[in-house]
Amino acid sequence: MSTVEAGVRINGARLLDRIAQLGKIGEIGGGGVCRLALTEEDKLGRDQVVAWMRELRMQVMIDRIGNIVGTLPGKNPSLAPVMTGSHIDTVRTGGRYDGNLGVLAGLEVVAALRDAGVELDRSLQVAAFTNEEGARFAPDMMGSLVYQGDLALDVALDTVGIDGTTVRENLERIGYAGTAPCGNNELHAYIELHIEQGPVLEHEGVDIGAVTGVQGICWTEFELQGVSNHAGTTPMALRHDAAAVFSDIAVFVRELTRRYGGGQLGTVGHCKLFPNLVNVIPSKAVFTVDLRNVDKASLDAAERELLAYAQEAAAKEGVQVSHRSLARFDPVDFDPALVDLVERSARAHGRTVMRMPSGAGHDAQIIARLCPAAMIFVPSVKGLSHNPAEFTKDEDLVAGASILLDTLVTLANGAS
Amino acid sequence: MSTVEAGVRINGARLLDRIAQLGKIGEIGGGGVCRLALTEEDKLGRDQVVAWMRELRMQVMIDRIGNIVGTLPGKNPSLAPVMTGSHIDTVRTGGRYDGNLGVLAGLEVVAALRDAGVELDRSLQVAAFTNEEGARFAPDMMGSLVYQGDLALDVALDTVGIDGTTVRENLERIGYAGTAPCGNNELHAYIELHIEQGPVLEHEGVDIGAVTGVQGICWTEFELQGVSNHAGTTPMALRHDAAAVFSDIAVFVRELTRRYGGGQLGTVGHCKLFPNLVNVIPSKAVFTVDLRNVDKASLDAAERELLAYAQEAAAKEGVQVSHRSLARFDPVDFDPALVDLVERSARAHGRTVMRMPSGAGHDAQIIARLCPAAMIFVPSVKGLSHNPAEFTKDEDLVAGASILLDTLVTLANGAS
Repeated sequence: MSTVEAGVRINGARLLDRIAQLGKIGEIGGGGVCRLALTEEDKLGRDQVVAWMRELRMQVMIDRIGNIVGTLPGKNPSLAPVMTGSHIDTVRTGGRYDGNLGVLAGLEVVAALRDAGVELDRSLQVAAFTNEEGARFAPDMMGSLVYQGDLALDVALDTVGIDGTTVRENLERIGYAGTAPCGNNELHAYIELHIEQGPVLEHEGVDIGAVTGVQGICWTEFELQGVSNHAGTTPMALRHDAAAVFSDIAVFVRELTRRYGGGQLGTVGHCKLFPNLVNVIPSKAVFTVDLRNVDKASLDAAERELLAYAQEAAAKEGVQVSHRSLARFDPVDFDPALVDLVERSARAHGRTVMRMPSGAGHDAQIIARLCPAAMIFVPSVKGLSHNPAEFTKDEDLVAGASILLDTLVTLANGAS
Repeated sequence: MSTVEAGVRINGARLLDRIAQLGKIGEIGGGGVCRLALTEEDKLGRDQVVAWMRELRMQVMIDRIGNIVGTLPGKNPSLAPVMTGSHIDTVRTGGRYDGNLGVLAGLEVVAALRDAGVELDRSLQVAAFTNEEGARFAPDMMGSLVYQGDLALDVALDTVGIDGTTVRENLERIGYAGTAPCGNNELHAYIELHIEQGPVLEHEGVDIGAVTGVQGICWTEFELQGVSNHAGTTPMALRHDAAAVFSDIAVFVRELTRRYGGGQLGTVGHCKLFPNLVNVIPSKAVFTVDLRNVDKASLDAAERELLAYAQEAAAKEGVQVSHRSLARFDPVDFDPALVDLVERSARAHGRTVMRMPSGAGHDAQIIARLCPAAMIFVPSVKGLSHNPAEFTKDEDLVAGASILLDTLVTLANGAS
């Protein structure tokens, strides 16, 4: 029985209205939102989500890291629940869709089921995970990590944020230091709807992304120590120019991405030269390289090549090089059966669909350690995200929610 | 008659003592000096130089831009004088040799002539030019430019410095707004002794540089405008990465110096990326390129190649590029006969000598527009200058002064 046959349909206007309402909490100019994790704005956003859950007669549970989990009870309480969700915290100059769409589409799925009076075999849970962005407290995806169990609760609670306060005191202050235990959660499956945050779907003219996994990430910071000297009096052969080595390595990063092909990304996003004057040979360069690949072996090889090339380029110029890892995540593969399910559901809704990896991190990649998981992407106009100008068309938002509804119902009513 | 035959000899101890005394005025840590032009410290330094000139029974003249010119009258007042000199202003964290050596060696030449009771045919002048460094008021070499005539006096006097005050009010405040006219000065020849401010003499193991000219300088600032995007979600082919174009151009600058050979210098000293975050593709890069060459045609060609390559590299990435010239000076050739004279004199003193261009700017390149000019370089240990650690060995300082004495006497007693 399809959801349409059962008369279960997403109410697009209601979904869009909730997105707009939540977008007003912490609103900033240009359509943007600032709801940094565990701030007063985050509390108000949470209160709104909890109020909507209660309106939908969901059981609301707050766990000890502040994750909000609303449950629509299923017919068979002994079966592990199916979960959807995302987060409602934002970066400092964020948009209204990132994270929020996943939570509010989950609520809309519940509302659609309530409207149709349809009960599922398994319970359906909608989660709003704490501090996915990591913009105030590191690491990002904190709530899902504690929920899943790989980050110890006390470590997370003791985390000091950019303003010098801890997760613990902020959770207590805003009234979201819950009592439900973290870790040891049993789930049947997890599906997350999210905006793409990149330009691929728009560029390809495709409606829906069936997300196959999340890229691995390797962030390295390099420091080059050369010798500062007069740009007019120092012959080229006697230089130890940190900027020359930096640009050599940056060009290598580009060359490496060409050689490794489509899946390999490489970005030099940050660079600082010292003393940074027009007529002084730079004594020091500090810069970062962000490498990403869906394939772990390729990512590891790219990192090895980068480190070897940096040594070689620095040695050639008589410059010292050191590096440290800023972040390192292995690629995550989503569950093939769930990816198939997303793809089939998109087609059933008459939507074009493509398989694609996620370039950004998401709670789904953490929950994938706990149960079969996958994600649904809808297009981001111009690929913009973490930006007040972040935008996804209404039609795409509603289509994404409809596909989420379909997949969740299938999973919650499935035999296995 | 050589100076030695005439019994005229530099008193090394007296020269070193004057360098040490002047170095105490505006002294900063590590052996450095801060005597920015027309500050209280500069006034005290000037007062000391004027006092020494008066002790040597020189005629002291202050001109309207504050240049101090001391004259040791010659036997034939109708002949144009021979001049030496330099400057005593320093950068904010300068050394005790840059500029000061040239002025104090000039005074030591006069003292040596007084000691020996030797009179020259031509008058000998020692100049301390105002604001050579340009560290407080632009342009640098201001005093010599006004003295020579290419910079109008009123323009120079109205120049506003980094602290918002004018050259005029500072000259008046420190009592060095003189009355002697600028421009229309007639000179027979000009020789300036200076530290190299680079590593070449030390690296080559040579005692003295016979300076053949001053390199041309071309400073260009580029601004690249790309598109900021997520480093994880934006495929390489859809990027407009300002940092990638920047590093491409920086590598080209190095390649260009290799292709043009020894005389061509190229430095990327300054770069700023925006927003300068590890996981954001840079939307903007602002950077400088400093090109120098002793050959004007080569410098012009290098600049043309650089601008063309920047356009090409930016277009390939879909990035906008703009540029502006920050400085442009043609190369200056010193007088071949005077360069020969310096070389011969160095050899006569048993010193090794090499011909070399100056990488930095000096008052001599301005006075070269007025009369035959040349410079004598002594080695800078480790090539350091504009740095409290700036250092030249006593032996080299004294040897430089002895060669200066020789060349000045030859020029002041020459037939022409």
